[in-house]
Amino acid sequence: MKEITGGVCAAKGFTANGVHCGIRRNKTKKDLSLIFSEKRAVAAAVYTQNLVKGAPITVTKQNIADGYAQAMICNSGNANTCNANGIEIAEKTCGLVAAQLGIPASDIIVASTGVIGQPLDLTPIADGIPSLVSGLGTDNSLAAAEGIMTTDTQVKEVAVSFDVDGTECRLGAIAKGSGMIHPNMATMLIFVTTDVAITPEMLQKALSADVQTSFNMISVDGDTSTNDMVSIMANGIAGNAEITSPGAGYDAFCRALHHVTVKLSRMIAKDGEGATKLLECKVEGAKTQEAARIAARSVISSALVKAAMFGADANCGRVMCAIGYSGADVDVSKIDVSYLSAAGEILVCEAGSGLNFDEDLAKKILTEEEITVLVQLHDGNYTATAWGCDLTYDYVKINGDYRT
Amino acid sequence: MKEITGGVCAAKGFTANGVHCGIRRNKTKKDLSLIFSEKRAVAAAVYTQNLVKGAPITVTKQNIADGYAQAMICNSGNANTCNANGIEIAEKTCGLVAAQLGIPASDIIVASTGVIGQPLDLTPIADGIPSLVSGLGTDNSLAAAEGIMTTDTQVKEVAVSFDVDGTECRLGAIAKGSGMIHPNMATMLIFVTTDVAITPEMLQKALSADVQTSFNMISVDGDTSTNDMVSIMANGIAGNAEITSPGAGYDAFCRALHHVTVKLSRMIAKDGEGATKLLECKVEGAKTQEAARIAARSVISSALVKAAMFGADANCGRVMCAIGYSGADVDVSKIDVSYLSAAGEILVCEAGSGLNFDEDLAKKILTEEEITVLVQLHDGNYTATAWGCDLTYDYVKINGDYRT
Repeated sequence: MKEITGGVCAAKGFTANGVHCGIRRNKTKKDLSLIFSEKRAVAAAVYTQNLVKGAPITVTKQNIADGYAQAMICNSGNANTCNANGIEIAEKTCGLVAAQLGIPASDIIVASTGVIGQPLDLTPIADGIPSLVSGLGTDNSLAAAEGIMTTDTQVKEVAVSFDVDGTECRLGAIAKGSGMIHPNMATMLIFVTTDVAITPEMLQKALSADVQTSFNMISVDGDTSTNDMVSIMANGIAGNAEITSPGAGYDAFCRALHHVTVKLSRMIAKDGEGATKLLECKVEGAKTQEAARIAARSVISSALVKAAMFGADANCGRVMCAIGYSGADVDVSKIDVSYLSAAGEILVCEAGSGLNFDEDLAKKILTEEEITVLVQLHDGNYTATAWGCDLTYDYVKINGDYRT
Repeated sequence: MKEITGGVCAAKGFTANGVHCGIRRNKTKKDLSLIFSEKRAVAAAVYTQNLVKGAPITVTKQNIADGYAQAMICNSGNANTCNANGIEIAEKTCGLVAAQLGIPASDIIVASTGVIGQPLDLTPIADGIPSLVSGLGTDNSLAAAEGIMTTDTQVKEVAVSFDVDGTECRLGAIAKGSGMIHPNMATMLIFVTTDVAITPEMLQKALSADVQTSFNMISVDGDTSTNDMVSIMANGIAGNAEITSPGAGYDAFCRALHHVTVKLSRMIAKDGEGATKLLECKVEGAKTQEAARIAARSVISSALVKAAMFGADANCGRVMCAIGYSGADVDVSKIDVSYLSAAGEILVCEAGSGLNFDEDLAKKILTEEEITVLVQLHDGNYTATAWGCDLTYDYVKINGDYRT
């Protein structure tokens, strides 16, 4: 497996585009994106578990119930959620883009991100679709990635090539993240494309398993979004023998998918609203997989841990506290806690008790842009990793008046 | 029932004091407090559910296992948690103060609050106890309240007088709050005194029930502390017929207790670290008590709702989102959301859909110091109220470098 350029257009048979259609007031910000497969593709998705769901989630579920799709459309600037006519707007969006592409409306994956509870006007979308479609190209993944950004400061796209039984396959993705990030069984908006040949069942199985150790292990602010969705289209153009069951081909595909999703997870966490640092928590030595996952997520989700990371304060009590209230089955009297970064490593808590440590070295370690909190539970063999970011003045600023 | 002055010394037979003994570097900050009952009192407590527990929690549990206590001692500046010798220090503290008071060490309720994971030196405590005890007085509740403050900006004390079968009884309390506030079955540090005559069983029953609708409905930052405890001593000096079972006397006592605990809950939430506003969420029309409680807590705990309140931004999507991911059993298509304050009331969401509303009026309402989010679920008859605060730059500042 190796990383390649091209984002969602890296895989054969995919084109993309992103335009400003007028949902956002700022004309320099793209707000409508499209990804198109020249061949009808096998499709799978996972969705937010929030009971308040964006209307596009409902429409997408319906459209890919048969396991196939051919295009993904997404607007930013308005979440089309908590709107009385949301379903109608999402369905009409599918209809308009499908007509322009010459495919059935039921083969469209539709998504929206932005403000919740404000009506989404169809006019700018209808006006924007012709140029969106006419501009589709294999070098436009970046434009599509830009069109789904909200408070993101970095474009997020990744692609890899990998080998399935001697055939070169490719897989790429774009993502938006930044705020309202605390996935529960699904997450944010991620669009993945691949030219691998695979059955709908194996594609859904791979995606559902993958998110448990990638996107479901991120938190920016503890708020599980109403519009989270990870969707994937696999058009089979690579020409590999179709993956129909577990085995070497399936494993190769899963590894490629995981490489891309973990990289995007880290990018989303690091670009969390207002964030200045990536905060990673590795839990080792857990009695169960669940204990490892719960403890790791609790540490990176703690407001107090996050604020301490912003201040480069090696406060191990907050890490211990977050493990203690996480609900994970742990023996708190055995826990060791260390901080790691490019500047070094320091043990700050041993067997559940705080240590006297070199504060200058700790400060140096925590001043780096990527910090790992290593938690050794000495209680078993399970591990888990979760990603978050620091809590900063800018997070408060961004969210104090998000709608204006 | 009426509010009276005197804090924890309002009830007959209680004296208190607070001194600076040297745990904190700042000599103007008191750091050691004592409450003493002239008569051995019935005692009860509820404790944090965090697996990482302060050593004083363990020692207090042991000391009041028999249902009685005569004094409460608490230091601030160090939590005595995640320390290898924590239990020994807490026990020695009890021994020293008990010797000075001339009572058994097993009748002491001991508590600590402050930094986790740093050894607590017994020397300043030992040095401070003589003057702490010699200064005990009925007009020193305020000094005791000051001695338990950490990042609190306001002293928190409340007292009431109430009637049990024609006998005047009194109940008072002091509290510390501010950060690491997200109670789970117990909460923060609250010391309650009363002169009511009541059995240990009925006292514990009243306290355990009360916290479910008072302290357990507060959140400042989602972090459940390691040292939370609410404890109460009832010395019976009021002379009422001992409360031994449910009935009018028990109900009068519970109402007095609830008046004090709800008032302290609001004070703690409003004085949350960095807070500029009290945020109250009232959920009405819930299908179950649990649904009402979960939804109300989720709204006041959401970082996005809290940041929007700081910015006086009437973003109803964030309230809907927080209800949706709360885990409460609700029908999201029926939910109405309003904002209320001294400046008026405004409906922003009806039947699950956002409304066009008067933004100027909304801004005016949300600029007040006490905001209520009213959530009507139209799904049953249960209600719940939770209290929190806004998320501000100062929260980040305070917690970016708490230890220095």
